[in-house]
Amino acid sequence: MERVLSLFASELEATENAMREAITSDIPNIPQIINHITSSGGKRFRPLLLLSCAAMFNYRDAKRFRFAAIIEFIHTATLLHDDVVDVAQTRRGQESANKKWGNAASVLTGDFLLASSMLIMAQHGDMEVIRIVANMLRLMSEGEILQLNKSGRGDTSEKDYLRIVQGKTAALTSAACEVGARLAGASAAQQRALAQVGLHIGTVFQITDDILDYSSDKEEMGKDINQDISEGKMTLPLIHAMEKASREERMFMQEALTHGKITPAKREKVISLVVSYGGIEYARSQSSQRIKDVRKILGNFPASPAQESLLTIAEYAASRSK
Amino acid sequence: MERVLSLFASELEATENAMREAITSDIPNIPQIINHITSSGGKRFRPLLLLSCAAMFNYRDAKRFRFAAIIEFIHTATLLHDDVVDVAQTRRGQESANKKWGNAASVLTGDFLLASSMLIMAQHGDMEVIRIVANMLRLMSEGEILQLNKSGRGDTSEKDYLRIVQGKTAALTSAACEVGARLAGASAAQQRALAQVGLHIGTVFQITDDILDYSSDKEEMGKDINQDISEGKMTLPLIHAMEKASREERMFMQEALTHGKITPAKREKVISLVVSYGGIEYARSQSSQRIKDVRKILGNFPASPAQESLLTIAEYAASRSK
Repeated sequence: MERVLSLFASELEATENAMREAITSDIPNIPQIINHITSSGGKRFRPLLLLSCAAMFNYRDAKRFRFAAIIEFIHTATLLHDDVVDVAQTRRGQESANKKWGNAASVLTGDFLLASSMLIMAQHGDMEVIRIVANMLRLMSEGEILQLNKSGRGDTSEKDYLRIVQGKTAALTSAACEVGARLAGASAAQQRALAQVGLHIGTVFQITDDILDYSSDKEEMGKDINQDISEGKMTLPLIHAMEKASREERMFMQEALTHGKITPAKREKVISLVVSYGGIEYARSQSSQRIKDVRKILGNFPASPAQESLLTIAEYAASRSK
Repeated sequence: MERVLSLFASELEATENAMREAITSDIPNIPQIINHITSSGGKRFRPLLLLSCAAMFNYRDAKRFRFAAIIEFIHTATLLHDDVVDVAQTRRGQESANKKWGNAASVLTGDFLLASSMLIMAQHGDMEVIRIVANMLRLMSEGEILQLNKSGRGDTSEKDYLRIVQGKTAALTSAACEVGARLAGASAAQQRALAQVGLHIGTVFQITDDILDYSSDKEEMGKDINQDISEGKMTLPLIHAMEKASREERMFMQEALTHGKITPAKREKVISLVVSYGGIEYARSQSSQRIKDVRKILGNFPASPAQESLLTIAEYAASRSK
């Protein structure tokens, strides 16, 4: 992954500049809030996907940095809205924007970022790019609302899960790839193929998150583990275990997840059921399957450093340890 | 106003249908939340502006209903976000969406409406319409953030006030008129003229709101009066009075507004200062000035029922008693 980051170092730098240029509001707390959250050490994972896909077709127009900035802005807007919704106190180890500036300013700055993104697209984009982004935003809000609806519910299917993951992560990574390809003048089939690569990468990224929450090493993770169960989040290892479990065990798990305040003993029992029914292995296999598919799709494109980078990013999404 | 509503009755009906058609999510609470808020008796004031402006140029394409629906959706999205921000319990006499479905679902359904609006524009609009809407959304979020910043602050200027009003109300009414004219193929100068009409109408609508908050008749208003001062809102009558007041009085008002919890006695004193310094008359004169300008601008267009309707709407915005 370090190699990919150094390969794209100057492009990511240009993206940072494009982000700074786009935030031109004279209302002082708007740039303050945006800088607070964008300068807190995000990895620019999503811009990197857009830039890699554009690079596969040797696209060199500086326009790509504006669109990479938009993808990061939309990500930032969702973080701002999510932190209000979750009443978050911190984000990436520092005070969250809602804690520091209040809910109102956070929601509205998120809206400002979405509006600014739309304005940049209206100035520099084509209608198809706007359609891709609008469709993505719709999938994102649908997926997140579905997640709320399914919180703590044992009848969450794997299909529901994948739609939730699309909303949380994969719609944006997919759009990042699709927009990169589209800007670069890729064919419709190539755009679809790379949108699929982006969808897989986002999904794998989220599945890895699910698995890491069962990691036994809190120190290594640098954050609390086993949080998903406490929050009633229906993740892939848990969904798989509930499908495999006996009726009685399923009822126990459902009951434990329902009330929002699970006891430590019940949580341990749920974890041991997830482990014994192979929930973690199943999630890993689902992740591997998608990496295999990414490799296959990318194999249809001519070899290039950008194509290799995409594969590296996909593998990183699966293998990262925090 | 009744005459305008009956003139556009079938067009408003078609707009309702377009709204229903556009909300196609299979996630059940999304249409539920949207219907809850859109069917609670909004006056479709903003779609009416778009339809009137389109009608001035005899534009008959059914596309106008989709765009009228978008304008109402964006208004609805801002209501959903505002109610979360204000921790509102009710909206138009019924339980607010955030009270009934929670903050998260309300914020996300607002986002869903914005995404859906953007998608419809990408399918049916031209790039200039998207630019108008994106620019409006940016002005709206800036104006609302400025309002937060200026809450309870005696140094709020009339210029600040007008920018806040643009964010709260007038950017959307202006865009409604501009998009209506644009769809109908009006010239750039005609579009600008009608955008200005929409800006005036929204501003007048808000100034009237400010004045009505000083109304002595709570029964007639059907809601609490003198709320703005309690909430530290810097409205036009108050801003004018603060400019005219003595240094001592200004300091008293500033102090009374600052702490968020004004006493009834201090509130009465602030009200009497606003009245004695002619704050209400001043606001009325600012409103009349704008109506005069609307009449002048509309006078440059050939006479038509639609043109008359716009003037009636503007006069209604100034003269409404609740």
